[in-house]
Parts: sequence; C-alpha cells; structure tokens
Amino acid sequence: MKCRVCKGPAVIDVRRHNANFCAEHFLRLCRDQVAKAIKDFSMLAPGERALVAVSGGKDSLAVWDILLELGYQADGLYLGLGIGDYSDSSGAFARAFATERGLTLVEVDLPTDHGFDIPTGARAARRAPCSACGLSKRHLFDDAARQGGYDVVVTGHNLDDEAAVLFGNVLHWQADYLGRQLPVLPARDGFPRKVKPLVRLGERETAAYCVLRGIDYIVEECPMAAGNKHLGYKEALNAIEATSPGTKHDFYFGFLDRASHRFADDAGAEREALGPCATCGAPTTGEVCAFCRLVERAAVPVELGRRR
Amino acid sequence: MKCRVCKGPAVIDVRRHNANFCAEHFLRLCRDQVAKAIKDFSMLAPGERALVAVSGGKDSLAVWDILLELGYQADGLYLGLGIGDYSDSSGAFARAFATERGLTLVEVDLPTDHGFDIPTGARAARRAPCSACGLSKRHLFDDAARQGGYDVVVTGHNLDDEAAVLFGNVLHWQADYLGRQLPVLPARDGFPRKVKPLVRLGERETAAYCVLRGIDYIVEECPMAAGNKHLGYKEALNAIEATSPGTKHDFYFGFLDRASHRFADDAGAEREALGPCATCGAPTTGEVCAFCRLVERAAVPVELGRRR
Repeated sequence: MKCRVCKGPAVIDVRRHNANFCAEHFLRLCRDQVAKAIKDFSMLAPGERALVAVSGGKDSLAVWDILLELGYQADGLYLGLGIGDYSDSSGAFARAFATERGLTLVEVDLPTDHGFDIPTGARAARRAPCSACGLSKRHLFDDAARQGGYDVVVTGHNLDDEAAVLFGNVLHWQADYLGRQLPVLPARDGFPRKVKPLVRLGERETAAYCVLRGIDYIVEECPMAAGNKHLGYKEALNAIEATSPGTKHDFYFGFLDRASHRFADDAGAEREALGPCATCGAPTTGEVCAFCRLVERAAVPVELGRRR
Repeated sequence: MKCRVCKGPAVIDVRRHNANFCAEHFLRLCRDQVAKAIKDFSMLAPGERALVAVSGGKDSLAVWDILLELGYQADGLYLGLGIGDYSDSSGAFARAFATERGLTLVEVDLPTDHGFDIPTGARAARRAPCSACGLSKRHLFDDAARQGGYDVVVTGHNLDDEAAVLFGNVLHWQADYLGRQLPVLPARDGFPRKVKPLVRLGERETAAYCVLRGIDYIVEECPMAAGNKHLGYKEALNAIEATSPGTKHDFYFGFLDRASHRFADDAGAEREALGPCATCGAPTTGEVCAFCRLVERAAVPVELGRRR
C-alpha cells in the first residue's frame, strides 16, 4: 500500500478517493479538503474571529486544529451539558487540548448557568434527549458567539453526520429542513454565521487525523444517543458506502448541487416567520423560543413536570 | 393476536398499520389498498382494457388477481427473458395461474422473437443485466400493449420496490428520474398509460395475499439480480423500517405529496426531447432507442462483441 502522493509506505486508505496516503500526505489531504470547503462555500474570511463548538470528540478538536493550521483565528467553546461522567470526561479532553496549545476555551455550564442538565431537561420537557440537547447547544452557541463578538460559529459536523441528517430529512421530506441544510448558514439579526468546514471529511478520516496529530479525544459516543434514529441512518448509509464507496459524498454534494435550491422557498418562508423571543431575543417562530420554553419546564421539579 | 376488524383470530400483523388481521379481512385490506391507489391516482377507469406484466412472482400475480376481483378487465403478458431455469420456472407459474382461471396470457419470447437472451444481451451491450432487462421489459410491454390495443400497462411494483427505487434516485439526486417516479405515467404518442396499483402494499403483504388466496408463485428471486444495488437499497430501508414501521410509506408518499413536483420540470424537459426511434418508432432521446441499440449489439456473437 503506497501513498498516492510520494509513493512511500501508506498508513491509511481512503476508499472514497480510491487512494492511500502516508501520514504527512494524509494530514495535508485533510487540511486541503477543509480549505476547499471553506473556499467553495465562503465559510470564513481572513481576520474573522471564529468560535469553534468543542465537545472533546474527534471532529471538533480536528476542525479547531485544522483551522489554526490554516492560519485562522479560532477560540473554542465548551458546553457542559450535565451528562454525568461523559460530560466530565469530554470536558477534560477539551481543556487539555486548549491548555497544551495555549488556546482560549470559553466554557458555559448548563446546570450552573441555567439550572438544569440534559437528562432532566429532556424528561421535564418530554423531549428526546438528543432533541433537547440539540436545541440547547444551538442556543448557547449563538449566545456565546454574540456575547464574545465572534463573526462565526464553527461546528465539527463531518460528511457522515451531514449525510445522515440529509437522509433523515429526505425520508420524511421535511422541506423546510431540506431548504436550510447547507454547510453555511448566513448571519442574521445579530446572530453569527454558522459553518461546517468538515463536510468534505468522513468520521474515519477525522479520527485518523487526530491519531496522527497526537490529539487525545473522547472516543465514547454520548450515552444518551445510543439507539437514536440518527445512528440508524448512519448505519444504513454505511452499509451502502461499503459496497459503493463515494455514495455518501455524491448524496450530500449532489443534494447541494442539484436539489437544495428546490427547497429554498420553504426555508425562506420559515425564516421570514421568525421574530425575537419574548424572553431572550433569539429568533423564533413562536412567542417564546424553544430553549426558553425548555428552561421554563426544566426549572419545574421533574416529578411535578411529569404530572402536568 | 386479534383481527382489527372482526376481533377473530388474526393470521398476520401489519406493523405499518399497527394492526393484525384475519385472512378474510387481510384480503379485504389488500383489495381496499389497491382500490384506493387506483382512485387516488386515477389509474384505471371502468371498461378500460388493462395488460398486466406478469413475471410469475407474487407481486404480478397478486395485482392481476386483485384487479379481476375489483371487476377490471385485465389480460396478462409474460415475457420470456431467456434467464435459464429461472425463466422456465417463472413462465410455468404464470401459465398455470392463467390456465386455472381461464385468463388470457399473451406471451413474448425475447430469444425467439428478438434473437438474444438477457445474459447474452447484457454482455454484448456491456450493460448490467438488470439494466438490459429493465429496458427490454419496458420496450416489450409498450409494444405488446400497443399491438393488442390495451389502454394501460399494469406492473406489480410494490411499496418496497418504489421506496428502494426512490432511495437510489435520491442518493444520486437524479432529477429527471425523480420527476417521473410516479405511480402513473400518462399515455403519449400512442404508447399506453403505465400504472402501479400495488404502491400501497409491501412485499410481505403481497406474499401473504398470494398464500392466503392459494396462488402459487415463483419464490426465488431472479438469479441475475443477486448483489445488485437495488437489493442493497431495500436492505438499508428494511433496517430502518424494522425500528420505525411506516418509514417507507412516509418516504414514498411524502415524496409524492411534498417533493416530486419540484422535479417535474426536469422530467418534462426530457419528455420534450423525445422523438421516435428511427428503427422502431418508440419514443427516445437519441436517434435509435436503447432497445434497438441493444438488439443490434446483442445480435453480434458474444465473443466478437467483447472484442469491440
């Protein structure tokens, strides 16, 4: 197995590219793919201040590292979600990464700052944990970026993530979600732009990137995610990718090229219906945004919430 | 396990409907679902002459049987594709069904009438067997219906088939295919309408229908299809359906309701580019249609064809 670039011994095969790479040229491939995504979708401009949403996992640490390697200015944001040992452990990986490199890591703790954790909040609001977690994260990312004066929030969503989300949206033909499933969401109403620079890398590649760069990350998946639909969609796509490498890439980028514009009006209609949340000012289609409603319900003792 | 309708002992559960049925009410469910599909999509009008494409498998025999039960006038068409024992055996099931019931079964034999079988034709044309077979079947169905003066060609595509085809089209975002993946294709240029009355039934249901009605059908899948992508798409969707019953139905009917119109222009553009095949007159986007090109190549001895 020889490196496509230098013909030296390869350490990894990337079937989607039908090629093998040595460590040096694999790391370059990863950086080049991120640079290409940033350029193709106008994600970041030189001099902009980026805030990377860091979970302590392979994707968010890889994207932070690559952005710095590419010369961008990027701080990290770690959200403590109160998911027991998992949160303790993932926070430690995020902090170690930042400390070793002398980077700025902003921290927000959901239990301390908002009085509830994800397991409790999900139960109180009768939401699936991943749903309560997702909306909390989106809200807190926005909030932290606005308060810190950042231009853009960076997340570590990779090709596998985006293909699985797309698959779920397509299975249910959620036109509004399809209309805004893009690698860049523009800034609006004082809320920062959101970008996904890893859309051209699979999760096997971000894991290999971290290993080869000596980046320690939390390997365990979030215990609350076990058995969720998103993982089922990933497995289904993995089975197809195994026999037809490149299918995920074609699915996601084919969507961006040839289909997403067909759903843009639906997302636009939803965007126009947005107004400021009466409680916090975040954009929402209702009176009060989903996060503030979650806070309100989660503040109620769990037992009381159940009886409502 | 009790029948949802009569509370008698049930013989089958249909998880998608979250219900169990006795034999009588399951058969009624199948007929009702077909009647609903016919009505919702204006597939057939009373008095029209239908030609059912019969393979000898569960789906085509079930749809033929149900159409007759619902009072429609329907003859069968069996295509001999020259796929060895499989064709001999499937033809015998189709003939037995027709003979026992005194029905008309039109027969067309690809080797006898056009000088090649599917394995040879696929090799000669360097096409995947399922691709050569599909285009041959479409051509010969059209041809037989036109010659026999039928108003409509009926095929036994079920919900599993259509969901898997849709999945393949979506994975590659084939806009023109998506624009014409409908349960009814209207008649044009003297070619008959094509309809799929089983789109509301899964393949487990059409199999159970045949068993309960005492219809003998060929259980084996076509040997040439083993390992094809379509089966991979079916497996992927089956894994999701197993944990979320109803997903396939939502995927397919959600597409028809909320997405297919977004691709209609692409299919329309292709339709407008159609002209008559210089050899046979069938609609084609080229000079000569794909079937006539296949005939031309397949007539060449296989060894010669390989060396081209």
